[in-house]
Amino acid sequence: MSSHRLAVDLPKAYRLLNHGPTVLVSAAHQGQRNIMAAAWAMPLDFAPPKVAVVLDKAAWTRQLLEASGEFAIQVPTVSQVDITQALGSSSGLALTEQQGIDKFTAYGLQTFAASVIGAPLLEGCAAWLECRLLPEPAIQHGYDLFLGEVVAAHADSRVFSNGRWHFTGHDDLRTIHHVAGGHFIVDGDGVDAHPLKPSRG
Amino acid sequence: MSSHRLAVDLPKAYRLLNHGPTVLVSAAHQGQRNIMAAAWAMPLDFAPPKVAVVLDKAAWTRQLLEASGEFAIQVPTVSQVDITQALGSSSGLALTEQQGIDKFTAYGLQTFAASVIGAPLLEGCAAWLECRLLPEPAIQHGYDLFLGEVVAAHADSRVFSNGRWHFTGHDDLRTIHHVAGGHFIVDGDGVDAHPLKPSRG
Repeated sequence: MSSHRLAVDLPKAYRLLNHGPTVLVSAAHQGQRNIMAAAWAMPLDFAPPKVAVVLDKAAWTRQLLEASGEFAIQVPTVSQVDITQALGSSSGLALTEQQGIDKFTAYGLQTFAASVIGAPLLEGCAAWLECRLLPEPAIQHGYDLFLGEVVAAHADSRVFSNGRWHFTGHDDLRTIHHVAGGHFIVDGDGVDAHPLKPSRG
Repeated sequence: MSSHRLAVDLPKAYRLLNHGPTVLVSAAHQGQRNIMAAAWAMPLDFAPPKVAVVLDKAAWTRQLLEASGEFAIQVPTVSQVDITQALGSSSGLALTEQQGIDKFTAYGLQTFAASVIGAPLLEGCAAWLECRLLPEPAIQHGYDLFLGEVVAAHADSRVFSNGRWHFTGHDDLRTIHHVAGGHFIVDGDGVDAHPLKPSRG
């Protein structure tokens, strides 16, 4: 696995999230660590790359993130759909968790060390973004909305290279999009838009 | 087309965006109107439903949105991939536009009236969310990030009903996810997660 993992240039890191996949968020602080699923995540800027993610108030991962000022976003594959759902809640999104349970340990998950931040990264994902929290207490408190700057990014080069996803021949590594209640849509084929010229105006 | 359009209950409106599709944002103010593409949009809350979307400072649609305090998010289909890209910029996301050009007119687009807000809605999309701006000037100015409350929602019942997307048999209505430069990923098959129990912890 690790032999397929390559760094992604930061100006292209937004492309790991541009297609709106469901993600996993991990954080660690003072020897504690955790991971949760989040369907509500998106890029926020190109360079420096930034991201936005919604994290439920009940989530222990959120507390670790707030305490450490760091978090990782990883993009799981269809092979990880069961663990992605298990790391979420039955509500379908924001994925509460019992305080104090390390879900890496509970589910026997394999991790590897991030290059810049302290949060552990989950093996087997399609992409990973290491982030530093951009503190915005008003929207964190008011909307459960967290912003971060991407400080390092990595992808499985079998399905992402030169700034593009290419899943053909690697169906088990396609990324996933949660709808609700454990039902996901898997990435399908790629399509390229053709130029249109305005007819009027 | 309009015969297939049905209202979506507001508590399930988040499911129209939960899978992270690229969207079109329209707004109108004092007789002017416009529409733009945005890949960076996501749900922000369940009930009342809220959304977050990133809108480039150069966008005229953004100015109309700020002036009117209203906007519509529509979810285009793969049949609309060319117009979606045309309503965006070559940069791949935030999709600047020349001030003063009404792209509905320029591209000969068919619209219908929203039920609550003043912004026009684009015919042929898979879903529509009518939104009122939740003014947050600091993040609008600092991050180009706009929050809204969904006040009405509609979907094409051929592909969304009872809170679920079901594209089988309607490949031309599948929703799309922009990667970069006019390259999109089309929604593929659905998959349901199986329950996993923690093995340890």
